[in-house]
Amino acid sequence: MISCVLLLSGGLDSATCFAIAKSLGYEVHALTVLYGQRHLFEAEAAEKIAHIMGAKEHRYVSVNLNAIGGSALTDEIAIPKGRSPEEMSHGIPVTYVPARNTVMLSIALGYAEVIGASDIFVGVNAVDYSGYPDCRPEFIQAFEKLANVATKAGVEGRQTIIHAPLIALTKAQIIERGIKLGVDYSLTSSCYDPTDDGVACGECDACQIRLRAFKDLGLTDPIRYR
Amino acid sequence: MISCVLLLSGGLDSATCFAIAKSLGYEVHALTVLYGQRHLFEAEAAEKIAHIMGAKEHRYVSVNLNAIGGSALTDEIAIPKGRSPEEMSHGIPVTYVPARNTVMLSIALGYAEVIGASDIFVGVNAVDYSGYPDCRPEFIQAFEKLANVATKAGVEGRQTIIHAPLIALTKAQIIERGIKLGVDYSLTSSCYDPTDDGVACGECDACQIRLRAFKDLGLTDPIRYR
Repeated sequence: MISCVLLLSGGLDSATCFAIAKSLGYEVHALTVLYGQRHLFEAEAAEKIAHIMGAKEHRYVSVNLNAIGGSALTDEIAIPKGRSPEEMSHGIPVTYVPARNTVMLSIALGYAEVIGASDIFVGVNAVDYSGYPDCRPEFIQAFEKLANVATKAGVEGRQTIIHAPLIALTKAQIIERGIKLGVDYSLTSSCYDPTDDGVACGECDACQIRLRAFKDLGLTDPIRYR
Repeated sequence: MISCVLLLSGGLDSATCFAIAKSLGYEVHALTVLYGQRHLFEAEAAEKIAHIMGAKEHRYVSVNLNAIGGSALTDEIAIPKGRSPEEMSHGIPVTYVPARNTVMLSIALGYAEVIGASDIFVGVNAVDYSGYPDCRPEFIQAFEKLANVATKAGVEGRQTIIHAPLIALTKAQIIERGIKLGVDYSLTSSCYDPTDDGVACGECDACQIRLRAFKDLGLTDPIRYR
């Protein structure tokens, strides 16, 4: 089996991405990057998902991005609640963590190099508009170019591929795909502001986008909301 | 004054880079990334340098790259000692930390975005051959391209510039430059394997390259060696 590194947050997207990587025949080395986010419950979700979905191994790397601040997810900034789809659809929200995906992919790149893997999976998504610059196809392409000059593997001619299979899917399409592949979404956590035991708020952008997608599919989101 | 972010390791190169940034009129926001390296003494050196050289602020971000291993600097791999210049001159050494500079520049990029800075200084050097892929000009160029699609600043049209003023200098040229700019090299630490109180081994690649450079200039390295 070919090994890949998969960035596993514990959210709906990364769990689906895991199922896609498996369906393509990869052996998944899951990597959870703890970046000082408030929603640590996601990391516990990641652990369950890695176990149940059969990761070859699961590693955690912590990076305290709260030391540089600048985001509602890592800093003392309020998480917006109850925004309308229109409000969500333009601008870069305060939940944007500066350079977050660059940092996470960099660590994934190091991990891939250590285990000799050339494939990295990341569940970024540009459609259900989050407005995050580092979720766009041009970001993924630029990172792939960087990867191939940044590492020993690149110097030795082994190309690194950054797989972002969800990038052009809507949240509903992601869920549809995941259900076909047997993803148990009750294991996942998306909320930016869950309770300590993981009950979702239902009102932040992430909850609203997720709830709407399940509703559009005529399904009930299996996680707990307050 | 224009703000910049400067990656400050506490080594000779980053101290020189600091002096260069200051000489260009930048206000320096120093960032020390602690990546699970064994040579924590460098971080203490960074603190002294930031203070004495007048950093506007100095932040630390920790990222436990030892969780992914793969380097003599972060893992249980012996640090090579007493290698000849010829042995050092080819191949990628075991002290290479997979994706280290990618990770450090990513965090610097996040910090720059938070403080609204468009300039990042990094003391990478491609000459005194370390064989590190992420010290080459093509790496810096690729990172700069990535930076401009990865961030809110990039999306809004503010170009990020990665300054690597030492990239084409020999270690002796770096020291010459730093001395002209008043760098106190007694504050710096380069050894891969210092004692707990910072006495350098004199035999690892970093020590040997440094000692030879001072000697070539007819100078005595002011730090302590065992």
